[in-house]
Amino acid sequence: MARRAGVSVSTVSKVLHGRSDVAAATRARVQRLLERHGYPARPRAAPTALAAGGLVDVVLNDIEGSWAAGLLSGAEETLAAAGLGMVVTATHSGGGGSARRWLDSLATRPTRGAVLVVPELTEDEHADLRALGIPYALVSPAQEPEPGVPWVGATNWPGAFAATRHLTGLGHRRIAVISGPPRRLASRARVDGYRSALEEAGLAFDPALVRYGDFTHEPAFRHALDLLRLPDRPTAVFAGSDQQALSTYRAAATLGLRVPQDLSVVGFDDLPFADWVTPRLTTVRTPLPEMAAVATRMVLWLIAGQRPASTRVEVASTLVVRESSAPPRPAG
Amino acid sequence: MARRAGVSVSTVSKVLHGRSDVAAATRARVQRLLERHGYPARPRAAPTALAAGGLVDVVLNDIEGSWAAGLLSGAEETLAAAGLGMVVTATHSGGGGSARRWLDSLATRPTRGAVLVVPELTEDEHADLRALGIPYALVSPAQEPEPGVPWVGATNWPGAFAATRHLTGLGHRRIAVISGPPRRLASRARVDGYRSALEEAGLAFDPALVRYGDFTHEPAFRHALDLLRLPDRPTAVFAGSDQQALSTYRAAATLGLRVPQDLSVVGFDDLPFADWVTPRLTTVRTPLPEMAAVATRMVLWLIAGQRPASTRVEVASTLVVRESSAPPRPAG
Repeated sequence: MARRAGVSVSTVSKVLHGRSDVAAATRARVQRLLERHGYPARPRAAPTALAAGGLVDVVLNDIEGSWAAGLLSGAEETLAAAGLGMVVTATHSGGGGSARRWLDSLATRPTRGAVLVVPELTEDEHADLRALGIPYALVSPAQEPEPGVPWVGATNWPGAFAATRHLTGLGHRRIAVISGPPRRLASRARVDGYRSALEEAGLAFDPALVRYGDFTHEPAFRHALDLLRLPDRPTAVFAGSDQQALSTYRAAATLGLRVPQDLSVVGFDDLPFADWVTPRLTTVRTPLPEMAAVATRMVLWLIAGQRPASTRVEVASTLVVRESSAPPRPAG
Repeated sequence: MARRAGVSVSTVSKVLHGRSDVAAATRARVQRLLERHGYPARPRAAPTALAAGGLVDVVLNDIEGSWAAGLLSGAEETLAAAGLGMVVTATHSGGGGSARRWLDSLATRPTRGAVLVVPELTEDEHADLRALGIPYALVSPAQEPEPGVPWVGATNWPGAFAATRHLTGLGHRRIAVISGPPRRLASRARVDGYRSALEEAGLAFDPALVRYGDFTHEPAFRHALDLLRLPDRPTAVFAGSDQQALSTYRAAATLGLRVPQDLSVVGFDDLPFADWVTPRLTTVRTPLPEMAAVATRMVLWLIAGQRPASTRVEVASTLVVRESSAPPRPAG
């Protein structure tokens, strides 16, 4: 997209962030392209006319991961500012996700709206939510939801594009990607962003260097080991999550390869540990609290009886360059 | 304590965990000592007579850390099983912690009880809670609360004892400790456990090797650098949190020291990343979900109008030996 607009990825990112240091004409050009590609401007602030008091539900598959913590933090801050309490429910259903138990619990208390971080809501569950008349928004749904259902995601394509371009810019020519489950939009957008950056650098797309995990450690570790044992092994790995990046560190250490001297690694998310592992992880920062805050503000607008300005928002990701990426060593 | 009971630390841990593979006489001896030291048996399960429905509040200073995630997960699971919803509030007040905003919000909705992970509640705040008549329990309070206020902590003393004993057992004689804020009970209990394990091994307590941080990265990094630059530098560091351990890894790498060849590191908590960093972190596992679950069950008993069986519980910590600890290299 940056290429089509004739601007740098960082300019696109500035426009997405609403930064002021972009020329007006450039901003307009980028915004037209962003809108055409489904990246509308960020929504307004929360409505001020909303009567305070009451509860909004936040539902996640799993509370324990760092990913959940960032989201909960953003939702709580937004709700507290609006004078609302946050009820948190976990579906305990792993990747799949059934919100059934939570839906049943809604009968026991008054709730004014819901933010759902449940990637795969069934048709029945959507129907029940509509029947209950509870306004809701989705965070990072696995699939593009039906029109009219507001949702917030990360800018996966631009994030992956920036990460891969960083690696090609360092001179890497064999770059592998470990993405998430292929059924998830986010996974596919990231592989596409990776592929576009390779194309831009005149590098061939090699399917042997593309792996799909589930954003967690163990599968990523096995994929990374496989990749690093290839006869023509990659000199860089772009991982779909910081957890997968950490698993790639481990795989490298297992094979006696040093990061970044023998292998560059780029993660995705920028969880708190990314800045503290050794070497410090280069990663695509995904503002999880901001994602949840945007979804929460959408719900607050719906509670106030108004359409949110945007019902499909991708919150800008930013590449954070730290110590885990470096030029490849000259072939010996 | 293990020494006084004439048993191993792992036996004490088994008794605390209610495991069955401990001889009855040994169990009785350990339990007597545990009770004398304020480690009563774990409380009963949640009351079954409790009318389902309604809300319990969980209040934390900060939601975003992994520490909070584990606690929220345990509280949510316990409440969901009892048919109650969980309202989560952050005080946003850093280490200090004021629950004032949360107390004010209670007027806007019915809440049946509260689990407070707010280390330093003021006298006024305690008084307001009592005046509201809302049953509550504390998790990891900074100070021993007034009698009658139920609370749950980690077994800091035994955890620190086990960690340090692991290091003396490997042959380390210069062992440093980086603990939390000295005003917190947990920090002092850990330094005492460390000191007792040194004594047991016939090693002198050297105040130069004892540092107090705040359980976060940056101060721990500076302490670790200081310690590793001492003329007679320690060969092992026992850190008060996994975050501090990660900072110690970084300090070691900064000075060209390898973990565990040149420096052994033991953490505290066993956050999810501890099992995935390179080298995998030896740490004192603190079952955060269990701590929150125990506190939540106390509140459920109080809601049911009954005294919990125990109002002061320390949930057992277990040493998990991984790759970051090894015998010191022979002096040469």
